[in-house]
Amino acid sequence: MATAKLDAEIALAERLADAARAAIRPFFRSRFGHERKADRSPVTEADRAAEEAMRRLIKAEFPRDGIHGEEFGVEEGTSGRTWVLDPIDGTTAFMAGRPIFGTLISLVQDGWPVLGVIDQAILGERWLGAAGRATTFNGALVRTRACRTLADATIATTGPHYFDDHDGAHFMGLAARTDHKRMVMGGDCYNYAMLAMGQIDIVCEANLKLHDYAALIPVVEGAGGTMADWNGDPLHAGSDGRVLALGDPARLDDVIEALACNH
Amino acid sequence: MATAKLDAEIALAERLADAARAAIRPFFRSRFGHERKADRSPVTEADRAAEEAMRRLIKAEFPRDGIHGEEFGVEEGTSGRTWVLDPIDGTTAFMAGRPIFGTLISLVQDGWPVLGVIDQAILGERWLGAAGRATTFNGALVRTRACRTLADATIATTGPHYFDDHDGAHFMGLAARTDHKRMVMGGDCYNYAMLAMGQIDIVCEANLKLHDYAALIPVVEGAGGTMADWNGDPLHAGSDGRVLALGDPARLDDVIEALACNH
Repeated sequence: MATAKLDAEIALAERLADAARAAIRPFFRSRFGHERKADRSPVTEADRAAEEAMRRLIKAEFPRDGIHGEEFGVEEGTSGRTWVLDPIDGTTAFMAGRPIFGTLISLVQDGWPVLGVIDQAILGERWLGAAGRATTFNGALVRTRACRTLADATIATTGPHYFDDHDGAHFMGLAARTDHKRMVMGGDCYNYAMLAMGQIDIVCEANLKLHDYAALIPVVEGAGGTMADWNGDPLHAGSDGRVLALGDPARLDDVIEALACNH
Repeated sequence: MATAKLDAEIALAERLADAARAAIRPFFRSRFGHERKADRSPVTEADRAAEEAMRRLIKAEFPRDGIHGEEFGVEEGTSGRTWVLDPIDGTTAFMAGRPIFGTLISLVQDGWPVLGVIDQAILGERWLGAAGRATTFNGALVRTRACRTLADATIATTGPHYFDDHDGAHFMGLAARTDHKRMVMGGDCYNYAMLAMGQIDIVCEANLKLHDYAALIPVVEGAGGTMADWNGDPLHAGSDGRVLALGDPARLDDVIEALACNH
């Protein structure tokens, strides 16, 4: 029965992602001048249209579920389950015309994300992870890659300007121990999708909100990786926003140790 | 006659980009372990295959032209014209599985790039600029956008780790005067393509080589933008690798002034 339920939830998550794609695509690379910034920008329009479309579908199918969206806030449910939505993760990338932003959809049950989707609306790329199942990319299984030493690791982060000075120093302490000539900047949720596909070994970020990371956990963990906070503890709704993802869980202790240095 | 010649050169540049695409695509997101790094990585294989394919086509059509390639070096010609090739600009992005690297093709005549192509092999995106002609994206005209003040500008750079400390301080001086919450990291040549489309206002980088920037100049300038070194002087084959691109040439003085502060 639990499996049938999860199948229904996954089917809805796929329809949510389809609806978000349709809402987002018309606004990508649409021309606008700086004068519109004070008003609604294309990314704001796309964000709202996508979240509204997803909320409508959830309410029709699972009316007792809660919804926690990045644009329209929290609507409490009565089922103990909450859909956590970020219609456009990577608004800066979207605004800059880069097709590596993503729509994030997760279902949180008893405080734990049991289902996660990262969807790239423009490229038609979808990563889907669910509790007890292997992560897929457009339906095909994907796996993280092994990483035998930190010195071999490719590390990614969206940008140093997203860290405060203290966190930035810790990040740099970690980055210096990796293969830092290959360090990747920018990327938002796309970095975690690439980690799930075995293209990147570590993602390290701070100041993330629940809607930024909930969907990533099932995707990364269903592909063989692990996610944690900067102390190595499991992420939960009350985590402090410092987030790690590793393709090879065997490197977690090395990463935590490297992060703790360079205060 | 000059027009007919340029038409033939553009036709060849398009065939070079087609050949590079075919050579690169099989290697994108191909699985490989870290153990292959010391040997040839997929990006090295793709880089070499693409440059070899392009060299063959140039030699067949314009045997007297010189070729200056990122992988196989300089072959002098006798025509006074040189094809400058970077088969994969953004090798880190390629390795990380991001489809925002690019193939750069330019034709330099009397020290000046008269033709430039930025081609994205995976997405099938091509920007083409040529002397006296308007820049196109997949055949459609594109334009940079106006930017009335530096405070409104979206700035992009591939990563702070590509600057030395001194240049990094100057970059940060400039970035601080822009709309830095929207600062974009990563991107390589893709940032210049997005600037040509009016999605980004400023790109600022250092340590670029001729094959990194020659193709960008006709693309950016044919779309209404401008490129210069950090002193505001025109780029040429002997430039010091400090490169600026602006969508709105009217902001050049402001950018140079902001770069000169914060020594």
